Amino acid sequence: MSPAGIPFAKGHGTGNDFIVLPNLDGALDVTPQHVRALCDRRRGIGADGVLVVATTANNSEVADQAGIAPLFMDYRNSDGSAAQMCGNGMRVFVAYLLENDLIDPEPLQIATRGGARRVAVGPDSTVRVDMGAPIFLDRMDIRVAAALSPQDVLPAVGVLMPNPHAVVWVDDLSSAGDLRVAPTVTPAEAYPEGVNVEFVRRISAGHIQMRVFERGVGETLSCGTGAGAAAVATARAAGNERDGSRTRVEVPGGEVAVTWHADGSVELDGPAQIVARGTIDQEWWEMHG
Amino acid sequence: MSPAGIPFAKGHGTGNDFIVLPNLDGALDVTPQHVRALCDRRRGIGADGVLVVATTANNSEVADQAGIAPLFMDYRNSDGSAAQMCGNGMRVFVAYLLENDLIDPEPLQIATRGGARRVAVGPDSTVRVDMGAPIFLDRMDIRVAAALSPQDVLPAVGVLMPNPHAVVWVDDLSSAGDLRVAPTVTPAEAYPEGVNVEFVRRISAGHIQMRVFERGVGETLSCGTGAGAAAVATARAAGNERDGSRTRVEVPGGEVAVTWHADGSVELDGPAQIVARGTIDQEWWEMHG
Repeated sequence: MSPAGIPFAKGHGTGNDFIVLPNLDGALDVTPQHVRALCDRRRGIGADGVLVVATTANNSEVADQAGIAPLFMDYRNSDGSAAQMCGNGMRVFVAYLLENDLIDPEPLQIATRGGARRVAVGPDSTVRVDMGAPIFLDRMDIRVAAALSPQDVLPAVGVLMPNPHAVVWVDDLSSAGDLRVAPTVTPAEAYPEGVNVEFVRRISAGHIQMRVFERGVGETLSCGTGAGAAAVATARAAGNERDGSRTRVEVPGGEVAVTWHADGSVELDGPAQIVARGTIDQEWWEMHG
Repeated sequence: MSPAGIPFAKGHGTGNDFIVLPNLDGALDVTPQHVRALCDRRRGIGADGVLVVATTANNSEVADQAGIAPLFMDYRNSDGSAAQMCGNGMRVFVAYLLENDLIDPEPLQIATRGGARRVAVGPDSTVRVDMGAPIFLDRMDIRVAAALSPQDVLPAVGVLMPNPHAVVWVDDLSSAGDLRVAPTVTPAEAYPEGVNVEFVRRISAGHIQMRVFERGVGETLSCGTGAGAAAVATARAAGNERDGSRTRVEVPGGEVAVTWHADGSVELDGPAQIVARGTIDQEWWEMHG
């Protein structure tokens, strides 16, 4: 019957989709080539990224988090590179842990390359993820222009979540134009490693809509750190800094919510869905390593 | 542990990808909603189409083929509509049947909405598929213009495989421009149900390259009937009609080959790869029906 294979699951959080690869014993060598091949939407399975379920004990780069977080979300971008943290990915990661009885549904910490993150599971299976505290690039005069309207240079707010963001407000989200092409963000020195750009429309206090350009990807249906950056920048502009209220963030792939707590930390909550589970063809895996 | 689910496989033929759903007992009700949700590349699994493994006995629309072909490739487009036939899909379908011991690797017939098709498996697991005989639209003065260069109206050849194609020759495949936008094909009466357009570059006798616009989809990495249409139109233009020789057809997703036999029938051969196997989440399936 069917050949042997590598276990996987595929899921998404507000349209940001991931392949989950369990690797608790560290026996699986997940190369950048594997990640690129898996994320290929036609020749592979297809996803925005890969979430390797690893342990802090097995991974020296997060060994300092071993005392508080036994499990490590080893997140890889679709281009094969290692990434720090992904809010939508963390929800899918936790949904996978829950269905495989790898954690109890109560507050716990998960190691990431961006530091250990607290997560908690709500009664309706929504997952709340601690995104850490934002860092504002206050001394930078950041400006954004959409690729198709380079004459409209808009003032922006720079936020590290800790990955880099530029948040800009518009009256109409369609004015961001075709986000397959990167917006121009100045000054370039503000973002030596590139930048994600959020175009945000304020609906009311505590309710925004956004579109997002993710560096190295293009427009995506959702970006967790981007939702966090957009919500805190909007709250601060309105004088509602760290007030503990929940901001609804509509993204093209659905809706998440962001809470900015008095201690400075940002919490993201939203849905996560495991769509399919199975095994990757063993021969295919060996061919693409 | 993991919840129950609907068995599936995902595979591709030269980058044209499919979800295979076994349904030999006819118990699974695969709705257009299911197909659209499964083919959604972020919220579902993602594919160009769905191949339901069905029987002629269970499906009245192909009951007339039951005597010669017990298995029915019930092919659905990613928009949920039922389709006749797909050469790349047939290779993936046969690869699935083989690995599940549902057929022997020798010539056999598979039912499709376009009629029963002979298939044969080569020693290196390539699958040869009988595509039937082309019908040329000889009395039509067909012309094609790429969306981004509407002034360049090129003469084309119309071919039914039996789905509709317009084949046009260019010196440089990049001159087809951005094929996310449909080329303009005239006269519209030639194609009452829309048309697939192949832009073809001749490399040598028996060797062509092509890009393809598929109606309702946009540019794809490969199209089996399109490769057939391109090869026979090119052979006929060179006076090599039905000569039994094999034409290599390079597509963006790889390479297939087309043989036009003396009896008029066209045979397509090429690779097929099953990438992953598993189950679709039961709750997700019920939510998306």
